[in-house]
Amino acid sequence: MPIMMNKVKNAMSNLVGGMMPHGHHHHHNHHSGGGQTCGPDSLPPRFPYGRPDFLDLSPELLQYSTEHASRPVLTLKRGTRLPWQTGYAEVINAGKSMLNEDQASCEKVFVKKPSGKHRNSTLLEDNGDGTGIPLHFWGVFDGHAGSGAAIMASKLLHRLIRDRLGEICHLLENPSNAPPICLAKNGSPYQVESKKGAAQEPEDPDAVSDSTVRFHMEKVVSLESLVMGVIETAFKQMDDLIEKEKASYAISGGCCALAAIHLMGKLYVANAGDSRAIIIRNNEVIPMTNEFTPESERQRLQYLGFLRPELLGNEFTHIEFPRRIQHSELGKKMLYRDHTMTGWAYKTIVEDDLKFPLIYGEGKKARVMATIGVTRGLGDHDLKVYNSNIYIKPFLSCVPEVKVYNLDENKHGPDDVLVMGTDGLWDVTTDREVADAVSAYLSCCDPSDPMRYTLAAQDLLMRSRGVLKERGWRLPNEKLGSGDDITVFVVPLAGQESET
Amino acid sequence: MPIMMNKVKNAMSNLVGGMMPHGHHHHHNHHSGGGQTCGPDSLPPRFPYGRPDFLDLSPELLQYSTEHASRPVLTLKRGTRLPWQTGYAEVINAGKSMLNEDQASCEKVFVKKPSGKHRNSTLLEDNGDGTGIPLHFWGVFDGHAGSGAAIMASKLLHRLIRDRLGEICHLLENPSNAPPICLAKNGSPYQVESKKGAAQEPEDPDAVSDSTVRFHMEKVVSLESLVMGVIETAFKQMDDLIEKEKASYAISGGCCALAAIHLMGKLYVANAGDSRAIIIRNNEVIPMTNEFTPESERQRLQYLGFLRPELLGNEFTHIEFPRRIQHSELGKKMLYRDHTMTGWAYKTIVEDDLKFPLIYGEGKKARVMATIGVTRGLGDHDLKVYNSNIYIKPFLSCVPEVKVYNLDENKHGPDDVLVMGTDGLWDVTTDREVADAVSAYLSCCDPSDPMRYTLAAQDLLMRSRGVLKERGWRLPNEKLGSGDDITVFVVPLAGQESET
Repeated sequence: MPIMMNKVKNAMSNLVGGMMPHGHHHHHNHHSGGGQTCGPDSLPPRFPYGRPDFLDLSPELLQYSTEHASRPVLTLKRGTRLPWQTGYAEVINAGKSMLNEDQASCEKVFVKKPSGKHRNSTLLEDNGDGTGIPLHFWGVFDGHAGSGAAIMASKLLHRLIRDRLGEICHLLENPSNAPPICLAKNGSPYQVESKKGAAQEPEDPDAVSDSTVRFHMEKVVSLESLVMGVIETAFKQMDDLIEKEKASYAISGGCCALAAIHLMGKLYVANAGDSRAIIIRNNEVIPMTNEFTPESERQRLQYLGFLRPELLGNEFTHIEFPRRIQHSELGKKMLYRDHTMTGWAYKTIVEDDLKFPLIYGEGKKARVMATIGVTRGLGDHDLKVYNSNIYIKPFLSCVPEVKVYNLDENKHGPDDVLVMGTDGLWDVTTDREVADAVSAYLSCCDPSDPMRYTLAAQDLLMRSRGVLKERGWRLPNEKLGSGDDITVFVVPLAGQESET
Repeated sequence: MPIMMNKVKNAMSNLVGGMMPHGHHHHHNHHSGGGQTCGPDSLPPRFPYGRPDFLDLSPELLQYSTEHASRPVLTLKRGTRLPWQTGYAEVINAGKSMLNEDQASCEKVFVKKPSGKHRNSTLLEDNGDGTGIPLHFWGVFDGHAGSGAAIMASKLLHRLIRDRLGEICHLLENPSNAPPICLAKNGSPYQVESKKGAAQEPEDPDAVSDSTVRFHMEKVVSLESLVMGVIETAFKQMDDLIEKEKASYAISGGCCALAAIHLMGKLYVANAGDSRAIIIRNNEVIPMTNEFTPESERQRLQYLGFLRPELLGNEFTHIEFPRRIQHSELGKKMLYRDHTMTGWAYKTIVEDDLKFPLIYGEGKKARVMATIGVTRGLGDHDLKVYNSNIYIKPFLSCVPEVKVYNLDENKHGPDDVLVMGTDGLWDVTTDREVADAVSAYLSCCDPSDPMRYTLAAQDLLMRSRGVLKERGWRLPNEKLGSGDDITVFVVPLAGQESET
């Protein structure tokens, strides 16, 4: 503990001075075996360390927020209004990293056609004159091995999404038309000329016999799947941008990214990592995300290792075993499973099986290449296996899974909410417990109190953090509370009605 | 039609003579663009064409069963008893292939330790003295491009599963013990010696600091996942066996494989293809399979094409487009999605995009490489893209998805059943409709009639086939009936109580 406290003080002296080149390097979930190479210390940070702007912390409060011993809960100030009266609360970890590596953002922006002036200056914060299609964005970013990637994503991801949507703005403005399959260079729909009376197009070598029908098939793509494609593409661009800007800035670590986007009556929830979002409607839980972990993505990772063994650097095997194999066990039979299997079978142990398994460990302790406990997210471009030249990144994916909830087609009361939280929340509290707690809390709250969703978020957070006792952070049932950073949004689904 | 009739007559003359070198080559779902190379005609069939043994058809009835014009429904004879009083019905297609390419099997076998005598003569049908652990097997095999693979799988898959289970028989006999992680060569559990007081094992270079705990982690594997592994492995061995025996026999085509295995109180349902199984309990539907089609497996196939472009033979692109691109569209923007995307986005068309998409078409017309409409199954080792040297097989997977239903932990009435059917059934009848029809039918049936499940199967089949009217096979609602081969098992879940 004394060492930790000194570290915190050193970090604070940097922090209060406004300069935080990169966080202390701890890996996700207490793991310290992996390696992380940062850019040269001379590079400036892309964004300085801080907490979300909407918290409006003074330097003193910023310092106070990092007290691992007391773990103060930060919430919105009374008087601060987020769009939709969104509630928010956060707390730092119990000491696993000096700074809170979670980040969050909540923004209302406007989608509009890129104008001549802005065409090449993307990512501008300015929304001009407030015209365009309104877009609400909530993002939760759980950093690891530093805060750089999480901070950068919290500042820029919503703008990337906004700008990509701007490019299809003319399609969004005519939602009753299905998006054209082909666009001319000027963006107008392009149709292949149909030759009069020549349905067979005999000069086309592909159009033989019954394949003609298929040749002329045209899939109808909905506007909704176009928005999904924009979000998926924006995550990839965010990841590419982090990589690119690492040449000029210190951007440490990587982050899980969970984003909710409200556009034209639909809520798109995009998740890459182990954060989670649920909708609570009439006290019923609607899961809006799946978690991406070494266990849930085992077969995808094993398949990549199987098809591209060079990525395993002769150190790892794509085959999973229930434990490490010892040299003396060569020739014996051991349980295993490969990328094709869900069950287990026995195989005779050969020399190659003595390598370390690509996926190893159980539950929260499962790791990819003994290094990282999540399999999707942004950043991590220079993350390598400890003491090796093996990069983790090819196995990590920046692709989110996007689910759509049709907000306008459902009725919502004031207690119906979207809860978004980092794994710190969900590790100790189940979906059901969260739903019950939120529903119970909100039903006792003054429905006209604009703070009610923030109070509900704070209540959720306290339930997962617990209180400090002699034997650590404990929940009321004496179970261990979460020692991780925790970040929670509680978004009222009837909240758009509160907008002016 | 006259041409078709002649073909049938020719086939019959072979068939009645007991010789059926290989079926007429039609592709799954009416597609005729793909190519299929069979072994030299001089090779004998691995098994002659026929219908399941339990139907006990005379040569006359066998010929009658192939009448595409009348499509007679075949059921169990009154007096024939399948294990558990299983019900069965089948019907041939409306003309898309000469013979019924569906096959089925229903067997009771016994799992026992391989004895010295049998150790090297696996796949023997004989179950010896009837001792061992009883195993019930139901299999439904939907062939395409010939009946060879489907017939072979219907004869051998259950024996492969039985024999693989025999190898872990000593573990099955002690179900209260978790399977040992490591086995010595003689099959007895092998434990690594733990060194006295040396938890750190300082001489082991891997056991540094906090990784020690992980090094010593041991995953507990259940007997259930060992049985799942056996089934997965047996599907792979079945596929390998087809490939191997093609050197000596004519084994035409490939097949979807759906198998239900009852062992020690649990029902394991393994599916590779687009057949389907549901449990109906209290008239509620419990889906036991997912279908594997170009649409449901799009991303897996695209990922393989992306990582191994040489498999696409310079003819196909792994990127999906909503329609074929014409040369005149180069430089324009078109909707697309790659292996990472669920939504759609626009991309500028380049030369490479003019290749044919790996996955193309919608619904039942979706195809892999314009050739095949299912993505999992057995056989198809020589299936190539029409007029090319591009093999389809690397994209087809023989791996089943296995789901487990704990039969002993649930109460079942006489109307609770497992329904297994080829896609001919499900293409025109929904899960809900099947459940309602079965429940309604069985509730009107004499509960002591041993034929009730066969009558229910026949009823289901009639609902999907319809009756022949002027405009083809029609359902009572005038919709088109299925023109495909249809095979249905109705397995009573309380059926084991009917066993002696």
